[in-house]
Parts: sequence; C-alpha cells; structure tokens
Amino acid sequence: MTATSQAVQDIEALARRSREASWALQMCTTEQKNDALESIKKILSERKEDIIAANKLDLENAKAAVEAGNLSSTLFKRLDLNGSDGAKYDTLLTGLDDVVTLEDPVGKCTLATRLDDGLDLFRVSCPVGVICIIFEARPECCIQISSLCLKSSNAVILKGGKEAYHSNQVLVNAVREGIKRVPGVPEDLVQLVSSREEVSALLEMDKYIDLVIPRGSNSLVKHVQNNTRIPVLGHADGICSVYLDESADLQKAISVVVDGKSSYPAACNATETLLVHENVADSLLPKVGEALAAAGVSMLACEKSLPLLSHTGKATAATEQAFYTEHLDLVIAVKIVSSFQDAVKHINEHGSHHTDGIVTESKERANLFMRLVDSAGVYHNASTRFADGFRYGFGAEIGVSTNRTHARGPVGLEGLMIYKYKMYGQGQASVEYGKEKNFMHSRIGETEYQSYQ
Amino acid sequence: MTATSQAVQDIEALARRSREASWALQMCTTEQKNDALESIKKILSERKEDIIAANKLDLENAKAAVEAGNLSSTLFKRLDLNGSDGAKYDTLLTGLDDVVTLEDPVGKCTLATRLDDGLDLFRVSCPVGVICIIFEARPECCIQISSLCLKSSNAVILKGGKEAYHSNQVLVNAVREGIKRVPGVPEDLVQLVSSREEVSALLEMDKYIDLVIPRGSNSLVKHVQNNTRIPVLGHADGICSVYLDESADLQKAISVVVDGKSSYPAACNATETLLVHENVADSLLPKVGEALAAAGVSMLACEKSLPLLSHTGKATAATEQAFYTEHLDLVIAVKIVSSFQDAVKHINEHGSHHTDGIVTESKERANLFMRLVDSAGVYHNASTRFADGFRYGFGAEIGVSTNRTHARGPVGLEGLMIYKYKMYGQGQASVEYGKEKNFMHSRIGETEYQSYQ
Repeated sequence: MTATSQAVQDIEALARRSREASWALQMCTTEQKNDALESIKKILSERKEDIIAANKLDLENAKAAVEAGNLSSTLFKRLDLNGSDGAKYDTLLTGLDDVVTLEDPVGKCTLATRLDDGLDLFRVSCPVGVICIIFEARPECCIQISSLCLKSSNAVILKGGKEAYHSNQVLVNAVREGIKRVPGVPEDLVQLVSSREEVSALLEMDKYIDLVIPRGSNSLVKHVQNNTRIPVLGHADGICSVYLDESADLQKAISVVVDGKSSYPAACNATETLLVHENVADSLLPKVGEALAAAGVSMLACEKSLPLLSHTGKATAATEQAFYTEHLDLVIAVKIVSSFQDAVKHINEHGSHHTDGIVTESKERANLFMRLVDSAGVYHNASTRFADGFRYGFGAEIGVSTNRTHARGPVGLEGLMIYKYKMYGQGQASVEYGKEKNFMHSRIGETEYQSYQ
Repeated sequence: MTATSQAVQDIEALARRSREASWALQMCTTEQKNDALESIKKILSERKEDIIAANKLDLENAKAAVEAGNLSSTLFKRLDLNGSDGAKYDTLLTGLDDVVTLEDPVGKCTLATRLDDGLDLFRVSCPVGVICIIFEARPECCIQISSLCLKSSNAVILKGGKEAYHSNQVLVNAVREGIKRVPGVPEDLVQLVSSREEVSALLEMDKYIDLVIPRGSNSLVKHVQNNTRIPVLGHADGICSVYLDESADLQKAISVVVDGKSSYPAACNATETLLVHENVADSLLPKVGEALAAAGVSMLACEKSLPLLSHTGKATAATEQAFYTEHLDLVIAVKIVSSFQDAVKHINEHGSHHTDGIVTESKERANLFMRLVDSAGVYHNASTRFADGFRYGFGAEIGVSTNRTHARGPVGLEGLMIYKYKMYGQGQASVEYGKEKNFMHSRIGETEYQSYQ
C-alpha cells in the first residue's frame, strides 16, 4: 500500500467517525449539549496557560514571516489569541455562554398537516449532519464553530489556517476533552485536520460529508467549488455596487458610499463599484468624489465620469476589467449609466450577487431595484457593509453565501439545519386512499406535534 | 471552429437566454403569470389535434421498440398523452387551472428585524433562478414543470425522454406561443433541449444554471451528480425499510409491509427491506410472510428468518448485497435484528436516507426511531408509499430529494424558491453602530414589509 492510499484511508476513517458522531449526537438532549459547552469552557479556562503558550509559538513563527514580508500584519494580529489588551481569550470564553443561551434549533415543527384522522405529517428541523469548515488563520474560530455545531447537533471537521497550527491543535484537544467529560456526547463531533492533502481527500468524501464551508480567499473558495460533489456554502467574490439614482439625496449618497468603501475595504461586503445616473452625475459626483478622496479612496473612473472627478486628484481612467474586480482596497470603480435599467443590468452582469444598494428618494424605484437586482442583499439608502450575520442579528455567522439554494446571504445557525418529515399513523396503507377515502390535507396546529412526543 | 465547439456555444447562448428570462420574469406580476397560464391552456386546447398527432408518431416508434423488447409496456403507457380513456389530455389542461389557483410563492416576507429606527431588514422569498430539469419519457411533464416554474418566476430548461421527442417539441412550442401572447412575459422562460450532448454541455453552465433536477433512473441521477458543479436536487436510490419492533401489532405490520412493498414496487418509496426484532420474529414473521406471498412478493431472507418463511414457498436465502439493493420489483429482503439499536444502525448504514418506518405500539420507541434514523421521511405505523408530494398535500411535486441541504423529501414548489434580504434605510453608515449606537435587533411584524411597498 502506498503512503498516499494509506492517507486516504485514514481520512476516510476520520470522515466515517464524523458521520457516526453525527448519528450519536441525535440522542443528545439540549441539557447534554449545554453541559458539554460548559465543560469546554471550564477546560479552556483551566488550560489557558498551555494554550497561550502554543499560540505564542505560532506568533513567533508568524513574526518571522511578517518580517520576511510573507505575511500581512493584519493576519498576524488575527492570529493572536490574547489580543493587544489580553481580553480576547476571555471574550472567547464568554462567547460559549452566549451559545448556551441560544435556543436549541433542533426539533422545531415548521409544517403540520392532517392527511386523515389518525394520520398526521410534521416537518421537523434537524441538523444537516457532517460539516467540513475550512477557515483562515484565526484560531478562535475553532471554538466558535465547534460550539455552534455542537449546539445544532452537527458533527464538524475543521481545517484551520496553517499559521495557527499549534493553537488549533491545543484548542481542539481542549474542546474534545471537554466534550468527553459529558457522558453520551461523542467527542468525535469535532475533529481537526491540518494539511491541504487531507482537505483534498475530504472533498471526495461525499458519502460522509454533507456540506463544505470554505472561508477565506477567493482562490480557496473557487478551488473547493471546482473539486467536490459535496454542496458548498460560500462566496468566491464580493463585488458589491451602489447606484445613485436620479432622485438620490447627496448626503445619503456620501454616507452610504464612503462607509461602503472605506470602513473596511478588505471585507467581502465593501462597495467596489459606484454607478451614477447621467442626469445627476454633474450634481452628485464631484461632491461624492471629494468625500471619497478625503477618506483616502482612489477612483477608477469611466470616460464620462473622469472629468467630474479629476479635481479630487484621486481619479484615473478605468479599464473594463475594473468593473469585474474585487479591489479589497481603498479603490472604487465609477461609472455613469444612462438609465435605471442600465444600472440594474450592469449589476446583474458584473456583480457577484452578494449585496447591492440604491440611493434614491423614490420608493417606487427602490422597490423596483430590489426586485430586479439578483443579489443576496438589496439595499435602499444603506451601506453594503451592513451585510453581516452579527449586524443582521443572527447572533452568529457561519459564512456568507452567494448560492441560490439552501442559504443565501449572511448565514447563521439556520444554515446548518435542514428538516425531516415525521408521519404518525395507525397502520394505514396507501392504497386505501384515492378510491375508498380521500386525503384531508388540513393544516393543523404545529403544537399538535407535541401530543405525539 | 469545430462542430462541437459550435454546439457548446449554442448551448451557452441558450443558457444565457434562460438567465435573462429569469431576470425579466422578476418584473412580472401574479396577474401576468396567471394570464400566461390561461393563454397556454388556450393554445393547448386549440392545438390538441396537432399535438395528439405528434404524440401518435412517438407512440408508433415506441410500439416497434416494445415489440422488439427494447421498451417496457409501462413506459409505453406513460408516453400516451391521451390515455386509454381519452381523458388524460383534458386532465392536463385542468391541471393548469390548479396552478393558476396556487398562491404566488414570490415576495413572501419570512423574517423582519428592526436594526434601528429607520433601518429595517426583511427576508423575502424569491425564485432560485434558472432550473434545468431532466425527466423521463412522460410528455405531460413538459406542461406540469413549465407551469410550476412560470408560477414561481423561475426559468426552466427542459430535457425530456427521447421516446417523447415529437410530443415534447409540439408541447413546448405551444407553451412558448402561449407565453408570447402575454406582453412582458419572456417566452425564453421555457426552453427545450433534446440530446444527451446538450445536457452534458448544460452541466458545465454553472454561471447560468442554479439547480439541476434529474428525474429518472439511478444511473442518470448518479451521472448528473458526478458531472456538474451545479447543485443537484434528487435521489439516486430509494432503499426504504420497515422495522417491526418488539411491540409491533400484527395487523398494522401486515398492512404497512404489504402496501409498502406491493402497491407499486417500481416506485422509489416502495419498501425494499423488512427488519424484525428477534423477540417477535416467531410470532410475527410467519404471518407477515404469508401476507407478502399472497400479494405475490418473493422474499430474500437472512439465515435466521428463512426457516420462519420457508412455508410460504416464496422465500430464498439472501446475500449481503440484497440489503443494499433497490429491488424495484415484487421482491423484499428480510432480516432479523437482535435489538432496536441494530435496526437503526442497519437502516442508517444500508439505506438511502429516503423513507423508513417503524411498526410499534410504543410511543417512546417510535419517537426514538424517528430521531435516530437519518432519513428524509421517518414513519410510525404507516406505509413508506405515503412519501410523495401529492400525498403530503403539496399540490405539485418537483421531485424527491435525499440531499441534506436546500430541500429534503418530496419537494413541492418551495424547492424552487430561495430568499433575498431587503434592507430599507435612510442613509445609514455601518460605522455609526457599535460605538455611538447599538443595534436594536427587535423582531417586528412581517406586515411591516408591506408599509415599504
């Protein structure tokens, strides 16, 4: 047997353990799951010193990489489990309390139909099953993701950024140890892999893995999408646009565009393209451009808009490619469009269907835009930067999806859930219906489900 | 340019037209969509003679194939648009009225959150976009699927069974003509392809197609799943089991098992495996076996169960493979298990996660089974044959899914829907929150959405 086929067998065994853990998890009560969360918190607290020591090791290696110019200082900062004020680790522990207080999403009845007297059908929420999450070098994600998966009765296979190797190992060990202390909760509900080769093997395991969530660079997401039959939840690009309509208010336009572009340019919900209706370009664009320039933003301007922005000293001519680009920097592409329809068409054809906004005083135009623009988020007079699970009030964010199936936009705990149909009968045969009897198909109260428990 | 690359370009152009049609559809009102449905009905009624003539052509070709032993008589029967009593075509037209009366699934608000005064977020249902449906040689599917996609504002690319070639052509022409007569509704919302090569090219078009629904043979579904990045909704196998628990009632067991196996053995929801707890095997199995034998069912029995079934004259020894097989015939595999846990484990490991049932008088056991068995449908004292969109009361069935994301089990119109987030603001910037202000995140009435329309 070659080393490679042995590695594949090992990964298959690991994936099978995840599936078995996901089945065992279906036995766990809400109390058991909450006990496991408390237990994880206790161990993380007891082992703080060891964990911070392992994290230091990663930080030292990363420091060398930063000095050699191979790692950004932002990434370095994210790697630090203690944070500059030493409070990050404690916040992480408090986060576990928040997950304890989250409502258990399993077992909710969402549809109840009486097919006949004594034959009732219920649609009941249940976990997706086994999730594989690939995430950036942000070690606290090990804890956040594990706790959300535990709460929702999903098993999870984690692959963290390689820069956080030592931190991830000790954190996942602590999580598994915490789970183990609660009888009946399977520790294999959380497993960790470290190498790209292991991820490649996992992407083949559609028998054991139900959903892959790649978080991180566009190239990572595209690679995963192109190399697996497993459903992928994520977004490759975040090319968000804001369109200033004929009746746009100048102050609102400035607020929305400047925040959208400059508040965190590297985020996927940052505004990358500014479209302006030609009838208001003269009146709006010079001032919006000044505000952008004041925020340090460079503008890649179309032929028509360049003269209206050149006074800012921050505008240069745009290529067509600028409108297909996620700049991820203090750079915005600017284009004048000749109609509302052209703006919609531009967004649907150039954007990434993530989040797009309109600035207008016309309610009618706003609603038409929100209907016609084919994106996960469509905003009226609000910054695209609001597109975020925490800002939406989901409590937790698993990722952002530009898929058009399962879950779209910022995805909270709901994205880890699906449902099953439960039917309660008294020995009925299907052949009784259609000829002798007809189905009632009456909607009944979802509380009827409780009477069967 | 080679012929092949020209063909791929043609298919790409076709897929692009579907995407554009799906965008144009977002402008259509419920009235326009219903008008188009009425218009389709009118044309189908006017052209009945031509359509039946085209169908006759398919039937003649099929007849030759049946005589040569290359086509089953069941398939031949399905191909006939007029049916044995001449009423099938008229039922098809009445079906369009039913779709008119279905509630428009677009634009329903399912979540409403106030982020702040003057900053409201709504989750609103919208179509998935472009659907590709590959279906068996059942020409009426052209009409049923087209009408459901139209009602839900999805564009659809149809690929019907080759035996129905002429029927599909005239039916889709009629549908497109009907749509064309209603201004503003894009006829390209329904397009038809005929060859396997075109399907292969379509499976590459993840830029334009959002969901593929293959209906038909296991090999077709598996082929599609293995050859596309587009999400696939469907089920390859339907290996459904019924487990007779320690407290099973004999009459209920007979009713559920005989109906599950014999009422339509070729269906995906037919029962393929019978499991029996060893404590009740002696008392139940001989009589259940007699009932199965009386219904013409052959039994593939495990070593322990064979002696209890041999008196029926229909039992032979099962191989291990029998428990991984979708028999699709009057054949059932029978196994005695030594515990409830073994039954659950057998189903989770051998089944296809479609629909599985327990026969028991214990409420506790029933609920435990329904919790632990990882299938789209879990039934207590009811035949697995109830797993069907019409029987569930969905009005229409798009397919049956054994996926664990997006839609599971029998899928009605809901499976063609997703949602988008609509945010209504007054020029807010994200940086205002967290420091100066906090989010309210208060749940508001879903009717608030109407105030913005």
